[in-house]
Amino acid sequence: MSHTPTPEDRFSFGLWTVGWQGRDPFGDATRPALDPAESVRRLADLGAYGVTFHDDDLIPFGASEAEREERVKRFRQALDATGMTVPMATTNLFTHPVFKDGGFTANDRDVRRFALRKTIRNIDLAAELGAKTYVAWGGREGAESGAAKDVRTALDRMKEAFDLLGAYVLEQGYDLRFAIEPKPNEPRGDILLPTIGHALAFIERLERPELYGVNPEVGHEQMAGLNFPHGIAQALWAGKLFHIDLNGQNGIKYDQDLRFGAGDLRAAFWLVDLLETGGYDGPRHFDFKPPRTEDLDGVWASAAGCMRNYLILKERAAAFRADPEVQEALRASRLDELAQTTLGEHETLAGFLADRTAYEEFDVQAAVERGMAFERLDQLAMDHLLAARG
Amino acid sequence: MSHTPTPEDRFSFGLWTVGWQGRDPFGDATRPALDPAESVRRLADLGAYGVTFHDDDLIPFGASEAEREERVKRFRQALDATGMTVPMATTNLFTHPVFKDGGFTANDRDVRRFALRKTIRNIDLAAELGAKTYVAWGGREGAESGAAKDVRTALDRMKEAFDLLGAYVLEQGYDLRFAIEPKPNEPRGDILLPTIGHALAFIERLERPELYGVNPEVGHEQMAGLNFPHGIAQALWAGKLFHIDLNGQNGIKYDQDLRFGAGDLRAAFWLVDLLETGGYDGPRHFDFKPPRTEDLDGVWASAAGCMRNYLILKERAAAFRADPEVQEALRASRLDELAQTTLGEHETLAGFLADRTAYEEFDVQAAVERGMAFERLDQLAMDHLLAARG
Amino acid sequence: MSHTPTPEDRFSFGLWTVGWQGRDPFGDATRPALDPAESVRRLADLGAYGVTFHDDDLIPFGASEAEREERVKRFRQALDATGMTVPMATTNLFTHPVFKDGGFTANDRDVRRFALRKTIRNIDLAAELGAKTYVAWGGREGAESGAAKDVRTALDRMKEAFDLLGAYVLEQGYDLRFAIEPKPNEPRGDILLPTIGHALAFIERLERPELYGVNPEVGHEQMAGLNFPHGIAQALWAGKLFHIDLNGQNGIKYDQDLRFGAGDLRAAFWLVDLLETGGYDGPRHFDFKPPRTEDLDGVWASAAGCMRNYLILKERAAAFRADPEVQEALRASRLDELAQTTLGEHETLAGFLADRTAYEEFDVQAAVERGMAFERLDQLAMDHLLAARG
Amino acid sequence: MSHTPTPEDRFSFGLWTVGWQGRDPFGDATRPALDPAESVRRLADLGAYGVTFHDDDLIPFGASEAEREERVKRFRQALDATGMTVPMATTNLFTHPVFKDGGFTANDRDVRRFALRKTIRNIDLAAELGAKTYVAWGGREGAESGAAKDVRTALDRMKEAFDLLGAYVLEQGYDLRFAIEPKPNEPRGDILLPTIGHALAFIERLERPELYGVNPEVGHEQMAGLNFPHGIAQALWAGKLFHIDLNGQNGIKYDQDLRFGAGDLRAAFWLVDLLETGGYDGPRHFDFKPPRTEDLDGVWASAAGCMRNYLILKERAAAFRADPEVQEALRASRLDELAQTTLGEHETLAGFLADRTAYEEFDVQAAVERGMAFERLDQLAMDHLLAARG
Repeated sequence: MSHTPTPEDRFSFGLWTVGWQGRDPFGDATRPALDPAESVRRLADLGAYGVTFHDDDLIPFGASEAEREERVKRFRQALDATGMTVPMATTNLFTHPVFKDGGFTANDRDVRRFALRKTIRNIDLAAELGAKTYVAWGGREGAESGAAKDVRTALDRMKEAFDLLGAYVLEQGYDLRFAIEPKPNEPRGDILLPTIGHALAFIERLERPELYGVNPEVGHEQMAGLNFPHGIAQALWAGKLFHIDLNGQNGIKYDQDLRFGAGDLRAAFWLVDLLETGGYDGPRHFDFKPPRTEDLDGVWASAAGCMRNYLILKERAAAFRADPEVQEALRASRLDELAQTTLGEHETLAGFLADRTAYEEFDVQAAVERGMAFERLDQLAMDHLLAARG
Repeated sequence: MSHTPTPEDRFSFGLWTVGWQGRDPFGDATRPALDPAESVRRLADLGAYGVTFHDDDLIPFGASEAEREERVKRFRQALDATGMTVPMATTNLFTHPVFKDGGFTANDRDVRRFALRKTIRNIDLAAELGAKTYVAWGGREGAESGAAKDVRTALDRMKEAFDLLGAYVLEQGYDLRFAIEPKPNEPRGDILLPTIGHALAFIERLERPELYGVNPEVGHEQMAGLNFPHGIAQALWAGKLFHIDLNGQNGIKYDQDLRFGAGDLRAAFWLVDLLETGGYDGPRHFDFKPPRTEDLDGVWASAAGCMRNYLILKERAAAFRADPEVQEALRASRLDELAQTTLGEHETLAGFLADRTAYEEFDVQAAVERGMAFERLDQLAMDHLLAARG
Repeated sequence: MSHTPTPEDRFSFGLWTVGWQGRDPFGDATRPALDPAESVRRLADLGAYGVTFHDDDLIPFGASEAEREERVKRFRQALDATGMTVPMATTNLFTHPVFKDGGFTANDRDVRRFALRKTIRNIDLAAELGAKTYVAWGGREGAESGAAKDVRTALDRMKEAFDLLGAYVLEQGYDLRFAIEPKPNEPRGDILLPTIGHALAFIERLERPELYGVNPEVGHEQMAGLNFPHGIAQALWAGKLFHIDLNGQNGIKYDQDLRFGAGDLRAAFWLVDLLETGGYDGPRHFDFKPPRTEDLDGVWASAAGCMRNYLILKERAAAFRADPEVQEALRASRLDELAQTTLGEHETLAGFLADRTAYEEFDVQAAVERGMAFERLDQLAMDHLLAARG
Repeated sequence: MSHTPTPEDRFSFGLWTVGWQGRDPFGDATRPALDPAESVRRLADLGAYGVTFHDDDLIPFGASEAEREERVKRFRQALDATGMTVPMATTNLFTHPVFKDGGFTANDRDVRRFALRKTIRNIDLAAELGAKTYVAWGGREGAESGAAKDVRTALDRMKEAFDLLGAYVLEQGYDLRFAIEPKPNEPRGDILLPTIGHALAFIERLERPELYGVNPEVGHEQMAGLNFPHGIAQALWAGKLFHIDLNGQNGIKYDQDLRFGAGDLRAAFWLVDLLETGGYDGPRHFDFKPPRTEDLDGVWASAAGCMRNYLILKERAAAFRADPEVQEALRASRLDELAQTTLGEHETLAGFLADRTAYEEFDVQAAVERGMAFERLDQLAMDHLLAARG
């Protein structure tokens, strides 16, 4: 299997990823600004099929109409020239100081209104450019102290905002679904909808839940110490994995946005295994930041590494699943039994309660003595990951 | 306000809390076993109104029918003698080695059947003793390695189990609701339904979601670095806070189960503020472990401390909310604006889109310059918490 | 005890704290730049006695000699006018992109040379302004990936740098000691000398260890989940607590730099108890960032809160130590026994080995049964902290 | 390179690792006790060269002299029959409830004396069996609450204990050095000497520092979010890596003790790279716990996996270092420059201060524009780790 990406692999990148200039909480930019059109071309050359953007990545906050049109035009030209698509877009409701207390849940009502209008404006552009997914990361929706935000009221406002955006999209007839991106903290002390679970639960209280799914990011869940593939599995189980942000993170600390594969490599392996076999057919979107130690050569090396690592892991996961010894080991660990319903096909509750072998006569000791053989299975996975079989 | 508890405060304790003998992963028991009847009496003396239990706390795993009856009888006598109630009960699906790979989601189908029957049996006892809430903590439902558990399939089995238990309770006509208790890890490397959010989302996929809510535990969410009051607020917002486990935890590490008030004191303050004003009317249930350094005197001191700390914090939170300066500070931080809908009462989407003051003519700079005054507000909270006002 | 600070309390603030404009990894500045002279005046008004600075806080990177002199002059005038002191100064080796790979341990040798010269230049100014402590935070000394830094070699370079600076200070006859500030990560993925312990150990390999101590910061240790008062106790035990950075942090996440008292309040209580009784006589220095939601009024409220919280905690800790019931409880927990040497004053090793009561005839069971009474003691502390005694 | 271990690889295992029965804070044993002699034989068969033990692993606490002799004799017979060595031994000062408040720093003086005598007794056995390293893990030396332990006094007692043990070993003429094993928490809320750094610093205050080094454990440092290879590098730099405990951990949570290679695989790669090239010549000691889901077959599979993973990583790290493209990439990232001293060989401080190219005329912008090329280097490492080169 080749480790060189092609558009069929459906790799996409945010403009803000390769375009990140390296400003961090303790340091100024280390790299020049990148022209979005240049990013499109370079990413296309590297084998990506799509590019995504925040409104402000493309059009500076406060730009004139004329500037806006010029910027969009140049971006479109680059897309046309390269065949690159725009599978997703999103709104920047966090960089400008006006959003210091949030967008959809800012205490200031006029800021909330401004945030909604800013979002709607970019939804129009997203639809125009053919995006099918609109991501919402509420990075400033949160608080640093206990009385600053009444969370239940804030969730009311968050629901109001999403219901309104859903109504707008339906009214316009756009073929666009929303993907909510959870994050536990940073830049706020605590962010609302901190994990995949919280976002999934929130969606169920919206007026048209079918319009909304999640856009989980590897590092965001790992910042809460959560198992990312487990979270993705629950999102898939709920029918809600609308988009995904791939990157790397070294455990519970500040948001690192490393290239995909860096950080927790074994979790990355299980993630690719799940994405490739679990029915997800959306873009493989990278939301990473090339470290600020890098110049532009390093930026492109880092972007290429994201895709290469995905393809290596895809190859290894496929080999793992295809190996007859693995299949036998999965049976030895009774994964086939897990796939059976606990009650028989036609078993009633009454029948179950009357089955003495299920409880009164169950041989507890025999069950205790059966090993699960998980260590052997996991070592087979390690061997495949490392290409150390045979 | 008195800091001495009374039954009106609705404090309850698990038998396993004061009864914990101090076995930990690196050490043997430091305290003798406690007779449940003795625990009931001592907790009643201290001012609690209720006691809760796992089946195995009351009746040893594998006990004969005669022993079971004798144990239950003695427990009932203690309840009757003291007027203590049993507001909640739960099943132990984690201590016995038969559950080494879980209960409802064990790969072994016969273990899953045994777990369900064990649960149903204790549901009968819970109903008999008047419990209104049945807690389910799936502490062993999880994995240490990636292939050991197919999470989507395991969630199918989890759903099957809860749907079955719901059907049973309805069929029996029990006045009993389920409360799912999330935890991110320990004793498994990763546990399914790791946070409040994941549990809330899962419930929405059950056949009768109205029967199920959550039983969040302070330390469990804090083990993922999450803001506990925020999680409780989302549970209340979803109408799903059926029960709560109060204790203390010093951040992201092993499950400490400290007495309530220990650990993150400021979070405890905001939690009590929320519970007392947010419409929660269930028990204030302590699920803690008196440190194994303590003898039985220390156990009772620790239990008394849980209640005392709750009452102190209740007093301080009430004073905070009643203080006119606080109310003014809340307005200065525009909490009143957050409570207003973002769109006007009769404002249409079209009208909103046409409002140039909301976007085109919005004075961004003025909004930037308005401080949120959160630091003053938070210092007022600190002053009230510490009784340092005036 | 008054909660209003006076210069006798020895509170100091970094210029960069109140002067922080609110730029974070996801957002632009929300506040205007503050003139250092204005900060000096306002902090003096609030009751502080000292102000500290990085070279670049006072004199912009790359400023001309004339501009430098003008800036220093205005700063001195403000100091003279207010009576404020400069107890500490430090070098900014992290903001400018030239330091993207570090200062003293940058792979680029010419960057290391530049960093050393920049430091020496500011040491001259520090000495001139009367500073007694020179802090070194090596925030960029680290790496995001494994091969990028040979840590042993980097420690050689770090030692070379500190030995050189020590030689310079001795040669100049400055009355100045160095205080190394540890931090585990952010802005680098992993920073060298990540904790108090690592810094203390490093110092012992320097040519003149007596010139170097540590400057621990509350939040930095808490970002590694470590107990801050324990770390301070080890630094005091080693005779190496030369300076301290007080702030607040909510557990393991990005560096929050909350005002002192926010975050882990109970740890703050034990910290103040230790600083006030443990022989530390340096400044109580606040290194915090007023949240970017605040305007300048909020900045000063936040600064005032730092000092107020310290004084409240000082009052409470003193009351705790003075309470006869606490003293009795400390004895009940055998803190007095901990203060006795384990061997008797004149006991020899041979004598100890021959003491059968120490081992062969030791009554293990009696020792097991003695409770430590820590829960009672900790509840007394809680009561004092909350002013809930009596 | 073969992935099958031989005694030349110097792999050793604790008796308590394969012998762990699976008791955890929430569950009872899942496996029968293992005869130490059986463990010796099985480990020898798998390719290990050594076995290590706590006194209580071999001889039950409180055993009679006769039983002690019988146990030691059978253990020796197994060693003789297999050629296995005992490179290290240690004392159990944590399992028995008498140590609930610690051993060397227990508040109870008689417990401290008992702990010292218990340790000395096992040092005699360790020396008799040929151990060269005596490990001390003070797992119970710590506290859950602030007043329970006066840390400075406790460090005095810790120093007293280690000084005494050092004196004993010298007096007896044993060829034995001590290795202190740090851990941040669990089973105590906070443990003294929580990291490699704290232990290294403590050692410098002992009477004969040369007798003491550290025994870092992968998971223990990772429980504090620290970079394990960085910690090992500092220990090597200080000349203090006397022994090492290899295992796996998935980030900041309870102590998992996974088999080596599980958990953070990339850190394991860099660790092996460092151990194999950094001058460490001690045992490669595994301190892990086969998950309690496993039966005895799973235990041996898990033990074999530890060694196999080490050998795979050793092979990959060697290939990485030998690759000419890697060597070129290291130069491109200026690792060779890091190895040069910052001052020239004969450069004086005065000369350095007079070098205008170092500061006044330094081309800052040119240095800013030089990329560090770390991403390319790290991707080369990833490719070698995954055997995906070429």
